[in-house]
Amino acid sequence: MKFICEKSKLQDAISIAQKAITGKSTMPILEGVYLNAKDSKLTLIGSDVDVSIETIIDSEVIEPGSIVVDAKIFGEIIRKLPNDLVTIETLGVEEGNNIIQITCKKSVFNLVHMNPSDFPELPAINETKLFSIPQNLLKNMIKGTSFAIAQDETRPILQGILFEVNNSYLNLVALDGYRLATRSELIDSENTISSVIPGKTLNEVAKILEDSEDVVDITFTTNHILFNLGETKVISRLLEGEFIKYKSLLPQEYKGLVTVNRQDLQNCIERASLMAKEGNTNLIKFELVGDTLIITSNSQLGKVREEVGVNLQGDEIQIAFNSRYLIDVLKVMDSDEVMLELTSSVSPCVIRSNETDNSKYLVLPVRLAR
Amino acid sequence: MKFICEKSKLQDAISIAQKAITGKSTMPILEGVYLNAKDSKLTLIGSDVDVSIETIIDSEVIEPGSIVVDAKIFGEIIRKLPNDLVTIETLGVEEGNNIIQITCKKSVFNLVHMNPSDFPELPAINETKLFSIPQNLLKNMIKGTSFAIAQDETRPILQGILFEVNNSYLNLVALDGYRLATRSELIDSENTISSVIPGKTLNEVAKILEDSEDVVDITFTTNHILFNLGETKVISRLLEGEFIKYKSLLPQEYKGLVTVNRQDLQNCIERASLMAKEGNTNLIKFELVGDTLIITSNSQLGKVREEVGVNLQGDEIQIAFNSRYLIDVLKVMDSDEVMLELTSSVSPCVIRSNETDNSKYLVLPVRLAR
Repeated sequence: MKFICEKSKLQDAISIAQKAITGKSTMPILEGVYLNAKDSKLTLIGSDVDVSIETIIDSEVIEPGSIVVDAKIFGEIIRKLPNDLVTIETLGVEEGNNIIQITCKKSVFNLVHMNPSDFPELPAINETKLFSIPQNLLKNMIKGTSFAIAQDETRPILQGILFEVNNSYLNLVALDGYRLATRSELIDSENTISSVIPGKTLNEVAKILEDSEDVVDITFTTNHILFNLGETKVISRLLEGEFIKYKSLLPQEYKGLVTVNRQDLQNCIERASLMAKEGNTNLIKFELVGDTLIITSNSQLGKVREEVGVNLQGDEIQIAFNSRYLIDVLKVMDSDEVMLELTSSVSPCVIRSNETDNSKYLVLPVRLAR
Repeated sequence: MKFICEKSKLQDAISIAQKAITGKSTMPILEGVYLNAKDSKLTLIGSDVDVSIETIIDSEVIEPGSIVVDAKIFGEIIRKLPNDLVTIETLGVEEGNNIIQITCKKSVFNLVHMNPSDFPELPAINETKLFSIPQNLLKNMIKGTSFAIAQDETRPILQGILFEVNNSYLNLVALDGYRLATRSELIDSENTISSVIPGKTLNEVAKILEDSEDVVDITFTTNHILFNLGETKVISRLLEGEFIKYKSLLPQEYKGLVTVNRQDLQNCIERASLMAKEGNTNLIKFELVGDTLIITSNSQLGKVREEVGVNLQGDEIQIAFNSRYLIDVLKVMDSDEVMLELTSSVSPCVIRSNETDNSKYLVLPVRLAR
């Protein structure tokens, strides 16, 4: 194998393929990145058990072939090379077995490589796209829901995000026992799908997705999802099992509707939670008095009282929250104003934007001892 | 006590005083910042056993007084407040003992405070300045030497930097068993001083010093050094004991003089050391062949060969180094070109700038087994 390519392009490609390489596998081959040079293209693949990422760059291929090299050291070498053309070739047996040479200007590296036939094959996917969505929109939907993925491993299905396609809408839903996040966007698809994708895969996908309107094509099989970004493809295993019927968790009505500036509310909650760290409860109390929301918290350290002006329609409700759950929601919302739908001190609070219908968040209150 | 001051000024002042607060003390009072309001000024002091930092800001003092508050939570509260005037006052006993109230717009915090009489007094220092030096220059001298401070605790004196005033020069010197760094600048002082200041103090001082030509006045007593920056004063204990007679360690002559572009050399060494991490030895070899410096390294991972063009006067010497020690030196040097003075494969290498005489670095080679 021998090929020549630009250092910067190779560096970017390694960084993409590496996102699949967790280093936690027990198979040493999965710490490697697979390189295939053929037909003026260099294909790089990184993989662990759950997810594989393939990316393709232009390359001058002098002798086609495949190798697998340790992704970490290979990535570090390429990153440190000067910004010039890089030549990579396998050496003959007289130089020792399984050696590649990396040359760039006056730098020459000899590096051990692994056997490419040991590298797992990508799952076969019949690439009929089911729907397309702009990359920036999907990225936003993932970021807007992934914070609510369950962190504990007792219910594995909740460590993923539900991708639900229904009536020309794509809904992303994540929930743990305390909050729920859902984002919904219109797409051009007549299909009906309900699949759960591991959260860690989606966090890596979000890093690869660009802030552009270029689309990503999405294909599902029984066991896998394929994100096709053109030069880059991400294939992930789906989570097995059925997701919680989340729609029944969302209240259909409310007794008090609070409209408030999002940043003001977030600032007040963040300050109030400084006093709520004692015992790691993050407990803060909301009290509505006319068009004022009073937020209080106290602990051994002292106490705090915050006031923020709101528009209240309906009941003056008192309710307590874990401040972290509210901050997580407010951070991922984009709108200047947010609306809180409240019913009682023991009913879930629904938070949504007043501008669009695309985000809906639910946070459970903390029941206070009487 | 009651005073009013600007949030941003108070925040900056806390951040300065906090640099003395390590949180490692067994005395809870030393986790606090001392506040004194008097004569339109607010004085803040942070302290641990070795170092104290005092800083003064303008304040509207309504009722003079002193308190000590937990520096971490107080700093967090002030940082999160809106950018406006902050009022801080002690409350009467009916609100509970030892409570201060912090008010800013619609935010009200009640916070426990500690007894200011428990806070240690600053060491008395007769403030006759011994010499002055521009802040940016001293900052640079500290950064140019502190990397060579010994990390192990077997010789405590080497955990400090020698401040030597002699013949109108200020010399800063740090060394461990493997390398030595010295920076020297002309100052206006007829005194002769030789004192060793703890490295961790100086790292905090370097953070407080500004990138400006404004001077810092320096005063020594038998046991302390005082850095006076005007609004801010840093007082540090000196290290006890005698510093190593470093001048005898610096070779007076050499057999080969290598002049090389600093960044080129650093890049080559950084690449070569990628292959030198095996067993954590960082071993790289230098070979001079005419006007070429060949740098090689190898390990179980593979091997690397780098070439960099140099100007060589004298002998073609071969020598091996721990790459980290060379990189540390090259990183803190400012000049485009550096000079390496070499004598043999077992003699120390002296690295200096070709433009000024103010920096001199010494790195011991690694002796290779034959």
